Amino acid sequence: MAFSFELVKSHGDARAGVFHTPHGDLLTPVFAPVGTQATVKAVSPRDLADLGASLVLSNTYHLHLRPGSELVREMGGLHQFMRWPKPILTDSGGFQVFSLAKINRIDDEGVTFQSHIDGSRHRFTPELSMAVQENLGADIIMCFDQCPKPNERAMVEAAVRRTQAWAARCREAHHDDHRQALFGIQQGGIYQDLREASSEGLKQLHFPGYAIGGLAVGESKSEMYQTLDTCAQMLPDDKPRYLMGVGAPDDLAQAVLRGVDIFDCVLPTRIARHGAVFTPDGQINISRMVYTRDERPIQADCDCYTCQTFSRAYLRHLVKARELLAHTLLSLHNIRFLIRHMEMMRRAIFEGTLEDYVQAFLERYLQAV
Amino acid sequence: MAFSFELVKSHGDARAGVFHTPHGDLLTPVFAPVGTQATVKAVSPRDLADLGASLVLSNTYHLHLRPGSELVREMGGLHQFMRWPKPILTDSGGFQVFSLAKINRIDDEGVTFQSHIDGSRHRFTPELSMAVQENLGADIIMCFDQCPKPNERAMVEAAVRRTQAWAARCREAHHDDHRQALFGIQQGGIYQDLREASSEGLKQLHFPGYAIGGLAVGESKSEMYQTLDTCAQMLPDDKPRYLMGVGAPDDLAQAVLRGVDIFDCVLPTRIARHGAVFTPDGQINISRMVYTRDERPIQADCDCYTCQTFSRAYLRHLVKARELLAHTLLSLHNIRFLIRHMEMMRRAIFEGTLEDYVQAFLERYLQAV
Repeated sequence: MAFSFELVKSHGDARAGVFHTPHGDLLTPVFAPVGTQATVKAVSPRDLADLGASLVLSNTYHLHLRPGSELVREMGGLHQFMRWPKPILTDSGGFQVFSLAKINRIDDEGVTFQSHIDGSRHRFTPELSMAVQENLGADIIMCFDQCPKPNERAMVEAAVRRTQAWAARCREAHHDDHRQALFGIQQGGIYQDLREASSEGLKQLHFPGYAIGGLAVGESKSEMYQTLDTCAQMLPDDKPRYLMGVGAPDDLAQAVLRGVDIFDCVLPTRIARHGAVFTPDGQINISRMVYTRDERPIQADCDCYTCQTFSRAYLRHLVKARELLAHTLLSLHNIRFLIRHMEMMRRAIFEGTLEDYVQAFLERYLQAV
Repeated sequence: MAFSFELVKSHGDARAGVFHTPHGDLLTPVFAPVGTQATVKAVSPRDLADLGASLVLSNTYHLHLRPGSELVREMGGLHQFMRWPKPILTDSGGFQVFSLAKINRIDDEGVTFQSHIDGSRHRFTPELSMAVQENLGADIIMCFDQCPKPNERAMVEAAVRRTQAWAARCREAHHDDHRQALFGIQQGGIYQDLREASSEGLKQLHFPGYAIGGLAVGESKSEMYQTLDTCAQMLPDDKPRYLMGVGAPDDLAQAVLRGVDIFDCVLPTRIARHGAVFTPDGQINISRMVYTRDERPIQADCDCYTCQTFSRAYLRHLVKARELLAHTLLSLHNIRFLIRHMEMMRRAIFEGTLEDYVQAFLERYLQAV
């Protein structure tokens, strides 16, 4: 098997593992920066590798619309196209179809929608999502699912049923398990029994990995953590567990404690483009007046290029002057902050000190700056 | 003296030299990328150094308005603020005052204008330009001058007179020649006698370097080259000669042949932001349909990160998808293209083959692609 998951160390529900892929090993828990359009915004692959990034996520919906997955396949696949030699994960397109596009029709067969770029009409089905993701050639690919609002029970029930039916069709349509590992996606909103039903259904399909979908989409943090209390443990121990779209530093800590292995989120690069950066004392906005003459780096003990090189005063100037370099430099720091956070948690799992690390981290991070 | 110019090798009118500055040696002829707001747009200082850049130009007008030169001084000066440890040149602010701002009044004393950012009212005088440039702390600073349209003789005559009077006041106001070398600026448009008068006046003031201003501002290329035929040789042999605002690859070649040592231009980074790149076969726009499936780099024999790493197809995708990384990657290539062009010309001066290099370069560069 090209793919296998080694659970190297457990500590409570938390896990440290190695997920072997054709493009190298992922040391879990791991955070994946998002490269929506085959590029992590404003960050070159060279700089991304310097930050210690291993896994990158790219979006099937966006690449299907532009430049098209056939073109990416002709150019040698996504690794070759964007020059990221390490593992890549693509989502199914489902989340963007439901959140970005104008939906024309949704039925058990699939979804007809209009492109957010030019209004052109498209149709996604589980089978098409598989074909597009096979063209893209990521290491980890995802079942086409329906992600409902997390706390409207009737809709969540319907989404669980449809997601299960679509998962079976994706499993059927996807053939080459050695080249690409297809993950099933658990839905069920904030309802434990629906999460259970979803997990049981997916497990029948024997996926090489499982995602937790439908969280961080509108519910409260305490609802998310309560759901995670049980839903991660419903998934097989011997397969990686991927919590989709979660990347706030406190959420990462809470989810690692509860047994999640893989994460992705646009947060570090998106907030960077608005001048916001992570620090151990919480998120700050570097454009604030108070940083005008601040000669300190964003974070004194950060090893990223930005913190090793530039003052807050200079970064503030770049943000205020709307300079492109601001996006790059703040993104570098934010990505490094999350990757180091994961590295620290992995080490703490080995050392049996994860609760201490998380408690100390949260106390400092969540206090008012 | 902290500053001195060694003329190492001449070939015809062309010169290879070394300009010693407190932040290191400039090997001339040299091209300076422009960092208008204390950043070369979309390029980090780390990447800029990798490209072989030595001199960077920054704009006094922009930094005076934002973040203010006092702030830059308090933060340790421009080298420290933007983290560029090699030589920096600042212009006088004159060119931007006359081209970007709304002028309220211009008289022999100075210029009153409104900021292009917020409409606030400001006044520049030769003395203020010196004070601002001393705050910024660049190695090479420029006299406050008036840059007229190059072919309206009466206006050019008046500008030469005013530029000379202002140069004398700048020379008087600037004291520390060891920390910062103040260059005089020759004006005179396309008129040989006015260029001569301007040069003679400036030489009385014994500057450590001389700029040629008022070219590449609307005249034809042949007018520019004809003017350069004589105006560079009017300036002292033993001081560096700086042609302001010129950076087209063919113009650089023509000006080096005619004895110019230093250049700056926004061209490589500005055209990059519109998808355009230099190649030995002329400028191309990477967003063209024809590059959709082009797996070649921009330039096969280019040693920049972009050409060593990415296909035209990928770069085209980034431009079409309006990704920030496009600006960075195309800027890296364009800057490297010009810096290598200068390196090749310097070598050709030593080898006595400059005419051959320039002829071969121009024949290929100026042919239709």
